[in-house]
Amino acid sequence: MKKVPHRLYLTEDQMPKQWYNLRADMKEQPDPIINPATMQPATEEDLYPVFCKKLAHQEMDSTTRYVDIPEEILEMYKIYRPSPLIRAYNLEKALGTPAKIYYKFEGNNTSGSHKLNSAIAQAYYAKEQGLTSLTTETGAGQWGTALSEACAYFGLPLTVFMVKVSYEQKPFRKAVMKTFDANVIASPSTTTEVGRRILADDPNCTGSLGCAISEAVEKAVSTEGCRYVLGSVLNQVLLHQSIIGLESKIAMEMLDEYPDVIIGCAGGGSNLGGLIAPFMQDKLTGKADPRIVAVEPASCPSFTRGKYAYDFCDTGKITPMAKMYTLGSGFIPSSNHAGGLRYHGMSPILSKLYHDGYMEAVAVEQTRVFEAATEFAKVETILPAPESAHAIRAAMDEAIKCRETGETKTILFGLTGTGYFDMTAYTAFQEGTMKDYIPTDADLQKGFDSLPKIPGIQE
Amino acid sequence: MKKVPHRLYLTEDQMPKQWYNLRADMKEQPDPIINPATMQPATEEDLYPVFCKKLAHQEMDSTTRYVDIPEEILEMYKIYRPSPLIRAYNLEKALGTPAKIYYKFEGNNTSGSHKLNSAIAQAYYAKEQGLTSLTTETGAGQWGTALSEACAYFGLPLTVFMVKVSYEQKPFRKAVMKTFDANVIASPSTTTEVGRRILADDPNCTGSLGCAISEAVEKAVSTEGCRYVLGSVLNQVLLHQSIIGLESKIAMEMLDEYPDVIIGCAGGGSNLGGLIAPFMQDKLTGKADPRIVAVEPASCPSFTRGKYAYDFCDTGKITPMAKMYTLGSGFIPSSNHAGGLRYHGMSPILSKLYHDGYMEAVAVEQTRVFEAATEFAKVETILPAPESAHAIRAAMDEAIKCRETGETKTILFGLTGTGYFDMTAYTAFQEGTMKDYIPTDADLQKGFDSLPKIPGIQE
Repeated sequence: MKKVPHRLYLTEDQMPKQWYNLRADMKEQPDPIINPATMQPATEEDLYPVFCKKLAHQEMDSTTRYVDIPEEILEMYKIYRPSPLIRAYNLEKALGTPAKIYYKFEGNNTSGSHKLNSAIAQAYYAKEQGLTSLTTETGAGQWGTALSEACAYFGLPLTVFMVKVSYEQKPFRKAVMKTFDANVIASPSTTTEVGRRILADDPNCTGSLGCAISEAVEKAVSTEGCRYVLGSVLNQVLLHQSIIGLESKIAMEMLDEYPDVIIGCAGGGSNLGGLIAPFMQDKLTGKADPRIVAVEPASCPSFTRGKYAYDFCDTGKITPMAKMYTLGSGFIPSSNHAGGLRYHGMSPILSKLYHDGYMEAVAVEQTRVFEAATEFAKVETILPAPESAHAIRAAMDEAIKCRETGETKTILFGLTGTGYFDMTAYTAFQEGTMKDYIPTDADLQKGFDSLPKIPGIQE
Repeated sequence: MKKVPHRLYLTEDQMPKQWYNLRADMKEQPDPIINPATMQPATEEDLYPVFCKKLAHQEMDSTTRYVDIPEEILEMYKIYRPSPLIRAYNLEKALGTPAKIYYKFEGNNTSGSHKLNSAIAQAYYAKEQGLTSLTTETGAGQWGTALSEACAYFGLPLTVFMVKVSYEQKPFRKAVMKTFDANVIASPSTTTEVGRRILADDPNCTGSLGCAISEAVEKAVSTEGCRYVLGSVLNQVLLHQSIIGLESKIAMEMLDEYPDVIIGCAGGGSNLGGLIAPFMQDKLTGKADPRIVAVEPASCPSFTRGKYAYDFCDTGKITPMAKMYTLGSGFIPSSNHAGGLRYHGMSPILSKLYHDGYMEAVAVEQTRVFEAATEFAKVETILPAPESAHAIRAAMDEAIKCRETGETKTILFGLTGTGYFDMTAYTAFQEGTMKDYIPTDADLQKGFDSLPKIPGIQE
């Protein structure tokens, strides 16, 4: 058996040169997205006003299995990648488990998370098309930071609509984005039609991801040479994030290992979709049969308590509609919920795979998540982001089960980022003021009531 | 010529198994430390009430060239090391310089800095001796965080005296230390004799590193089974930090490279001493003659404007006296100064080497430092700590000179840590409210007036 180091880094030669497109191996495709203007399946051209052309193509292309990563993106990846695959010897010891725990750590860049993998790709394609600016939204701030960084690198002006409650509570996140010259606006704002409408209804509205998306899309389509980019949910984002799983798989092969269970946190699905991609390929093609587990907050349970239905991706209902697990675009998670993973919907690709039984999902409460985060930090020297700590919690639970059953399972989880900007939540946990929140069925019903009606498709 | 990757990671097999003790190759030794109780050179035993025995031995041992790193420390190092040696291709391109720039990045752990290298060693030896608690001080918070992390790992209760102005301005730093169960006290405090005395003189005192050291030492010597640990300045700390330079040198050898100039930021000297150790060895033994440059803040210029004299290591004047470059233990840097590198003295080893002409020193102003930090972050995807950005500034200046002269120098600098907890300073820089401050000769004289008199040695 090979000696397994604590941290394994691929060399530059070993790094993947192509992304992997999961759809190429799916027996059934996700249902098409619907253009709300026509109530018909959207075409690639329908997306051009919102996305740059190559990204619109990636969004719709379900057949190309491997996509060459452009040289310029590979060069940028090399600045902060490969990310290490880490054997959690210390966590295993602390848990007294016979399980082998591995994690892929994506927090080693200024943005502090995996989001940079797609931000670079999206900024690159926009620049290549000759666009002159971009817009996006950010909640907890990881995506906004990553895109700011990528745009600074490619010299593209960027406007970030930041959910107002985060804008006010996380001045340091804002400061990082400004270091990268981004124009950061609290959402809802008076700079857009949809923002003004929301503020007219509720002047004290603290915002939501869905609302920030509406504003960012509106600004993109109404500005010459400007497009909108999104950090999760989309097929193109899962494609870019496949770099996480591809690197992980190569590293595990070098160690003669294969995971019995793969665990990732799930908000919109970007990290999870990226991490599992090549392992799901094995599953779809019958080469292997690992368990794949999505972990979501109990306070925003799209997979475990959502509906598999067509829904808008934003609150303002101006984006195309996608078939996905959703709590309804009108759902706003409790302000009690710390960190990200607060999006109402879920990647259509992952939704389809979950619906077809290729994945499991589990919802966890946040005090148990921070308990896991703290224990993990103490033994593994990484302070995890609250989002990432959802995966840690589930991995620890899995390893504890192994202690009880004596099974020597190999567990792989995704550690998406660091928690340096989440110390307010850590402090609440330490001081015992952090509360759990599980929406009632009635709470969820309000969100479901916002689901759209589509003649002949969803009545 | 070998192909140079962006990031080079040693494998676990390649990692150094011994620390290197610079003193073994110094032609002249630093002057001995003086016990203020006897006004005579201190013995190893004199240090036992303050330091655990093995560390007291390392402090005094000037002859053992290589010290085996205990297995338990090597295991802990493997959790977050090796740190990468990074070729700054993007920075080179942005500067248009023919110089080759390398940096050793030490920020990839929860503590966010190189400080963990010595924290682990010091906590380990304390635990091994059966001690039951430790005390320390912290200013900007990097050392306190690192030691909290190490103590949590070895199960040792820790009290951190945190300079009051930092305690109040950096609640998130405090929160990280608390995540690791440290007891964090704002200094000056009423928990010590010296703290009460300082507060009696000035109830509004916002503290200093020298004052926090006094409190931490007092608590250590007055508590059963407790010792004091310090994150810089000491010989033992430079020994532990030699891991940085040893790894760097192995990595550079793999690339067939040798630095023409080695640049490190200097507060107490721990990072600088560690980074340069094996290169200074080459210089001391005549094998090579690289330039070695210490970079310090213009607001706290121990090397460039200090005196080479015996001084106390703390404000309360209870520690031994060391011969070093110092601004006087009474010197308190302007509150205008952001981040660390605010200690009044300097490592006695580095002071001696500087005094004997083996090193250069340069002082830089903080707006130029943050300018460099921002430019660096944009192209290299790492948000540097203000301390580290001093080295970036000097490395960039060196590379810009090469652009002008056409020289293809190889530059190596130490990137000691990340700036996630320094966004207040970044914001001040972005908003143009950051000011530079250079002490006048009269300001410095006040500090020099606090230098001790030692009969027959320093009158």
